[in-house]
Amino acid sequence: MQSVKKESVDRRLRDLRKRMSQKGIDVALFWDPDNEYYLSGFRAISYSRPIMLLVYQDHTQYIIPALEEEHAKLNAQVNEFFVYYETKPHSHMNTHHLDPLLRIMDSLESNTVFGLELDIIPASMLKMFQDNGFSVKDIGEDLIELRAVKDEEEIFWLDQAGRLSDIALEASFDNLKPGISELEFDSFGDKKLLEVASEEFPDQIVGFENWTCSGIERSAMPHLYSSTRKYEQNDVVVHSRQVWINGYRAENERTFLIGEPTDQQKECLQLAIDAQQAGFDAVKPGVKASEVDQASYNIFKNAGYGDYIQHRIGHGLGLTEHEEPYLRFDNDLILEEGMVYTIEPGLYMPGVGGFRHSDTVIVTKDGCRTITSYPRKLKNLMF
Amino acid sequence: MQSVKKESVDRRLRDLRKRMSQKGIDVALFWDPDNEYYLSGFRAISYSRPIMLLVYQDHTQYIIPALEEEHAKLNAQVNEFFVYYETKPHSHMNTHHLDPLLRIMDSLESNTVFGLELDIIPASMLKMFQDNGFSVKDIGEDLIELRAVKDEEEIFWLDQAGRLSDIALEASFDNLKPGISELEFDSFGDKKLLEVASEEFPDQIVGFENWTCSGIERSAMPHLYSSTRKYEQNDVVVHSRQVWINGYRAENERTFLIGEPTDQQKECLQLAIDAQQAGFDAVKPGVKASEVDQASYNIFKNAGYGDYIQHRIGHGLGLTEHEEPYLRFDNDLILEEGMVYTIEPGLYMPGVGGFRHSDTVIVTKDGCRTITSYPRKLKNLMF
Repeated sequence: MQSVKKESVDRRLRDLRKRMSQKGIDVALFWDPDNEYYLSGFRAISYSRPIMLLVYQDHTQYIIPALEEEHAKLNAQVNEFFVYYETKPHSHMNTHHLDPLLRIMDSLESNTVFGLELDIIPASMLKMFQDNGFSVKDIGEDLIELRAVKDEEEIFWLDQAGRLSDIALEASFDNLKPGISELEFDSFGDKKLLEVASEEFPDQIVGFENWTCSGIERSAMPHLYSSTRKYEQNDVVVHSRQVWINGYRAENERTFLIGEPTDQQKECLQLAIDAQQAGFDAVKPGVKASEVDQASYNIFKNAGYGDYIQHRIGHGLGLTEHEEPYLRFDNDLILEEGMVYTIEPGLYMPGVGGFRHSDTVIVTKDGCRTITSYPRKLKNLMF
Repeated sequence: MQSVKKESVDRRLRDLRKRMSQKGIDVALFWDPDNEYYLSGFRAISYSRPIMLLVYQDHTQYIIPALEEEHAKLNAQVNEFFVYYETKPHSHMNTHHLDPLLRIMDSLESNTVFGLELDIIPASMLKMFQDNGFSVKDIGEDLIELRAVKDEEEIFWLDQAGRLSDIALEASFDNLKPGISELEFDSFGDKKLLEVASEEFPDQIVGFENWTCSGIERSAMPHLYSSTRKYEQNDVVVHSRQVWINGYRAENERTFLIGEPTDQQKECLQLAIDAQQAGFDAVKPGVKASEVDQASYNIFKNAGYGDYIQHRIGHGLGLTEHEEPYLRFDNDLILEEGMVYTIEPGLYMPGVGGFRHSDTVIVTKDGCRTITSYPRKLKNLMF
């Protein structure tokens, strides 16, 4: 099953506790499953049953639903568990996720300062802390910063995710034929990916998401769920895939052209390819996020297509679909070795189509390397 | 593409506005994508770019990122759009999702009362309303109540989701063979499901999630992500699947036994089947949620297995993985015609395995009907 090395968890908690001291936070309470996994190695499926991780200077606690008890005790690197129940035989125990938390709060000094992920935790939780007279500071920003630079263990899994995503793309393209739908195209890659992962990585969690937009109208919208629309002659298709293993994600996207594309469609795809290359070339430690964005954007602008962009050039990646650093024109964040993000400049023209490749890169000592490598050239992407 | 009938949106907004008046809420702000879809017919992929729907007594507004502008204008049944940007050519416009919201707040009387989904919207949003001196009430509970009873349009899609999930289960079981992994077993169903959906439902959004736990140890934990673990002789496997079309979800789960199960394993699976039947039999309008839970639980208790349960008997289903009504021992909610939920009593015994079927039911005038119907009997589930 999935896990995180003890030394990684220890180092992350040490870094977090240093920040808590500096900010005057006594207890950090985490609600976000990805932050919890990062800090404890435990990942649960959590919809209607909240899971909370509390970090103090000298210990850690988990509040978990009964149906995660065994799983958490196997996987979570944590000092203490509080379990809540939803069944008749346990009606004399905690029956709500707030029961143990309220008891913990009762045992603390009234001047205890809590750290919460203010951009993630629900408003009702903040209200509860306010109603109980505790002061609250943000701890979410700290986790964003800590998680932005990946360690060796994380980079190992990112590399595997990148390679698996290439295998999936290859299987989708190998099975491309007239009359299949966006979702069927996706599914060839899914199936192959799971076969290969099952052979190579026993007892691991592997997953995927795809967003495929086909046709002139749909591809010109950057962000749609894959649908049952069937490919037609002269379609422009933007196929996007994220694959994760042991939590870590790679993004891999290719735009391709079916049938007889117009000269302008070929020009636009070539521009997206060139803008992506300019993005790769701009990356090294010490450069601002905005500079990478602008390096890509200038390719579009200089070709007279500057008005046909709709989004930043890339986003960070790791445990979450989108995370820092965001490669935006106005983000002064300085890139560091070990940061991971996508480079995915896109052009979207009504009546012509959408054009965007995305690859995942890791910042190295003096530049970057891609962890996704499916062929990017125009000649490889015309069918 | 996905859509919701105008008359449905109109009726839902009418019901919501009545509740807003009763509660003294002037403007309801929605953050949850499922609530937004329910009230406008627009569903976007939203990770790092928030989308907000504002409902007043006489109009509605959407705050959307630039890359959703065209998509939203095609699909969203709303009066007014505010767009925010993340690119250099638009640096003189809104460049943050709060820019348009703050301007809207500036234009409102200071005694305006906002409705927020307090259990969903991030704490930082509540803080912003507090800092700007507005009072805030919960509107999330109202949407939970409105959404709990499904209308004819919703039931149509739920029926399709149920049928598609049966097709997927059949394909997974038809391809069951020694040595395949949990994820490969899932993928046979995924692929067939997408083929059939592509043929029958052009231009629709279809999706799925699976959670398969195999082996004595893993099946005894009710809630795990599917992994690359390969099936072994004498495994107990709990295979769980949700399928959605046009947003609406059906859940379909079967426990199956590979090889030569022990008498106790067969007994436990038969008890789970009997407990589920007792749950089906208990459902009709006017009954409490807790009564259905207890009808199932009593089967376990009377057989001497009352201590081996870990979760309630079922949860509501519709647009979200888990929603009201929760079939818990302490939920006094009265069931109504048109409510939809799972019936999934489970037994979990260390060293023996986990045993749980789940089916999705719709409350009818005088009972319920299942929308999932893959064979449930022990003799169909031994391989």
